[in-house]
Amino acid sequence: MRVVYSPAHLAHDVTTETVMGGVIPANEVAERAERIRTTLEADGGFAIDAPTEHGTEPILAVHDAGLLRYVEEAWPAARAQSLARPNLTADTFPNFRMFEGMSPEFVAGRTETRFAAGRAGWWGLDTANPLVAGTYGAARAAVDVALTTVDLVLGGEPAAYGLCRPPGHHAARSMAGGYCFFNNAAIAAEAFVRAAGEQVAILDVDYHHGNGTQQIFWRRGDVLYVSLHADPERQYPFFLGAADEIGEGEGSGANLNIPLPAGTDDSGYLAALDRGLAAIADNPGDVIVVSLGFDTYGHDPIGDFALTTAVYHECGRRVAALGRRLVILQEGGYHRPSLGANARAWLRGAEGRPYESLPASGFGGDGSDR
Amino acid sequence: MRVVYSPAHLAHDVTTETVMGGVIPANEVAERAERIRTTLEADGGFAIDAPTEHGTEPILAVHDAGLLRYVEEAWPAARAQSLARPNLTADTFPNFRMFEGMSPEFVAGRTETRFAAGRAGWWGLDTANPLVAGTYGAARAAVDVALTTVDLVLGGEPAAYGLCRPPGHHAARSMAGGYCFFNNAAIAAEAFVRAAGEQVAILDVDYHHGNGTQQIFWRRGDVLYVSLHADPERQYPFFLGAADEIGEGEGSGANLNIPLPAGTDDSGYLAALDRGLAAIADNPGDVIVVSLGFDTYGHDPIGDFALTTAVYHECGRRVAALGRRLVILQEGGYHRPSLGANARAWLRGAEGRPYESLPASGFGGDGSDR
Repeated sequence: MRVVYSPAHLAHDVTTETVMGGVIPANEVAERAERIRTTLEADGGFAIDAPTEHGTEPILAVHDAGLLRYVEEAWPAARAQSLARPNLTADTFPNFRMFEGMSPEFVAGRTETRFAAGRAGWWGLDTANPLVAGTYGAARAAVDVALTTVDLVLGGEPAAYGLCRPPGHHAARSMAGGYCFFNNAAIAAEAFVRAAGEQVAILDVDYHHGNGTQQIFWRRGDVLYVSLHADPERQYPFFLGAADEIGEGEGSGANLNIPLPAGTDDSGYLAALDRGLAAIADNPGDVIVVSLGFDTYGHDPIGDFALTTAVYHECGRRVAALGRRLVILQEGGYHRPSLGANARAWLRGAEGRPYESLPASGFGGDGSDR
Repeated sequence: MRVVYSPAHLAHDVTTETVMGGVIPANEVAERAERIRTTLEADGGFAIDAPTEHGTEPILAVHDAGLLRYVEEAWPAARAQSLARPNLTADTFPNFRMFEGMSPEFVAGRTETRFAAGRAGWWGLDTANPLVAGTYGAARAAVDVALTTVDLVLGGEPAAYGLCRPPGHHAARSMAGGYCFFNNAAIAAEAFVRAAGEQVAILDVDYHHGNGTQQIFWRRGDVLYVSLHADPERQYPFFLGAADEIGEGEGSGANLNIPLPAGTDDSGYLAALDRGLAAIADNPGDVIVVSLGFDTYGHDPIGDFALTTAVYHECGRRVAALGRRLVILQEGGYHRPSLGANARAWLRGAEGRPYESLPASGFGGDGSDR
């Protein structure tokens, strides 16, 4: 399988994030993508390509221009305001309840503020989304990775994998969040729809609900969004991801959320996956954009599922068995030692290569990653 | 002047807050209220009363029942989820942009989540609002302090001062934030309107915009809200507080925001105050609820104004000179050494007692507070 990767992600070198008011070591770190890259290189069956530049137009097809400008300007603007913290993290957010009783027209007239903390909150969902000097370049490169992966599939590849970092699925049209700045999968899906004139399905198998992707295509009938994820009752992003969220308008019925309980294991996950794949099979289209996360893994430090490396191979196999072409884009997954083996298993499953050929020791059977 | 105070605030013993992703020593601490109480006791001209209990009905007159329940349950609920942090601080917030394009009906159907971090974000505006075991009792007592102050004025006092802590003006109908849980001033104003059947004016002279008070009375013509504050372009709460926010519906014209620049000094502040007082004088009513903050002081660690202790005396004098009865409620102010002297100056000004009788040394002329 062809893999698209850019070293530009290394400049998004965050070291901490803020959770429930406390500073903790960052989960979404450069090592994640490097673990996956080196494991795929070692496999020998993957050809790694550099992305080609696609400019900002495909980003602006799904994002507000203000968000793009914010991500580009935020770091130098914060520095110009003499903010000396190691990263830019918001602390105040325009909770929709702040404006309760105010007319939609009034709320629509509110604008971002000049001061960095307020501006970051205006465009943000949470405090676990640190922005540093290299974030914009990395986020732009991640989009180019996604779009180059689309190009490969449009060019005839049955499946291709974009090793995007930072991830994207929490980024809404006008909001970053959850380690995400631009929604790589949504940008890829939109680019595919525009290029091919076909419907597309997005299958989101990250542990977390892809609130951004859901929001972007909420009223769209030509992009089916199917997500398996931890029930937002107990997990980020909390405020979206429930099963009763089916889309509205032309998008009504084109959003399928499958929230899952803590402790979800291989068999429970595969049953949910089959449900998601059945929904995709019921809809027209020849391509699936996969938002691929490995925070569903049993040892993930954020997640509470119990998946094994073996099941990722089976997941890849079942997704490919639908017979559609696959634009596979990396989202989350934070147990670094297993990331390479898990990605390798999923991608080998999607290509029809056996899982059994992997070494049997170590995390997910990948001794080189221990 | 009669002063209402409760020691219940001492149980809201927060030690840290989170600002731009970093943990810093708390600004809104118990010492603040104790500094003011001891200085007023030393003055000899203030009679300190305990509040009487008023129950939850006056709170529910301006707040969503869910917010009351959240503040009451949040700490034990977080403990039951084994959260071991020293306080409950939200990290993820329902930014209105998360729901962009979703219908108002859909958004109105979203509900709080069970997990503590998500629940705190649902009801919150920011990360600088730590909740601890004693928060609910303290917040309830602060409301009782405010309502007892209203009782004193309804009973004939020309002016009375409620030493509320935690403060209240950032708390909206369905949202806590900015060290505030229940909106003491809004609850007091509503209680006065209901008891007296008269219009009331709220004069908010805290350094920050009282977004909660504005939101609660946004469509009300019987409560005039006038606020002098740091321009939200550069200061919390960022997303509300601009001069073009005048209210809507029956409340159109009953909201006056006067944003002020960094470095605002005594003369600039008095000019703005006169503008606010003129607006109040143009409206009917016999009572002013004053949201009194001293974060406008030159040495305040949060603020960027340059006010002196002497000007607080003049502010109190000018407010009282309107000839209306005054329900004076404490909001912010974080330069602890000066808080007692500044409160004493304001209140003596409001009673017509001279500023000159204060000792001349120390912060704001109050040597005992150094």
